[in-house]
Amino acid sequence: MPRRDAQSEPGSPAAGVHRSPCPVACALDLFGDRWTLLVIRDLFLGRRRFKEFAASPEGIPTNLLSDRLERLVNSGIARQVPAEPGSKRMAYELTDKGRSLRPVLKAMRDWGLTWIEGSDARLERR
Amino acid sequence: MPRRDAQSEPGSPAAGVHRSPCPVACALDLFGDRWTLLVIRDLFLGRRRFKEFAASPEGIPTNLLSDRLERLVNSGIARQVPAEPGSKRMAYELTDKGRSLRPVLKAMRDWGLTWIEGSDARLERR
Repeated sequence: MPRRDAQSEPGSPAAGVHRSPCPVACALDLFGDRWTLLVIRDLFLGRRRFKEFAASPEGIPTNLLSDRLERLVNSGIARQVPAEPGSKRMAYELTDKGRSLRPVLKAMRDWGLTWIEGSDARLERR
Repeated sequence: MPRRDAQSEPGSPAAGVHRSPCPVACALDLFGDRWTLLVIRDLFLGRRRFKEFAASPEGIPTNLLSDRLERLVNSGIARQVPAEPGSKRMAYELTDKGRSLRPVLKAMRDWGLTWIEGSDARLERR
């Protein structure tokens, strides 16, 4: 069970233990933190391997990256796949549920570009 | 200065101290946590007073609510106004910068309604 105290990291609540039925609150239970949506962004940008996520410019600490990847798999937003056919090395990719987050990322990107001085999307691969 | 360590709450960085130029990362610096977007949701729903935010179904602890409201004002997403003309009691309202977050909330709402069992927007006022 995830910790439910106010300062806890976002949990991956079992069905029915959401803070409220509000879909925004339910979504924030899954990715309401500083890092998870950046990993999802990286997956949209075509990054697939742990080391690729770790190399992103925000410098996510590897312990947090491990935790976030596990949460993303547990919540069905991403899944593990072999890095290459037949390889034992693993990579990650978005599921349909994860790919459906594109409008969330796009809306945040558009807002950031409009309102936050110094933000710049040209460094991204798409 | 906000703490910049990995486990810290989202800060309100001074211009130029973002984790990266990525607009998504910049946005998450402002509202990448479990609560801030819920306060913004409440402002969109017409809630204006501290006690109204505190009464929302997620039960935000009042110390976190105070912190989030202060951050929202400091980052220019919300502003304080008199609760009634001439009153000393204060209320909050979204600025243009805050109202521009509507597509972010809408995208999260749509995603939650589609993908999270038990989520329900009918309890909201709009």
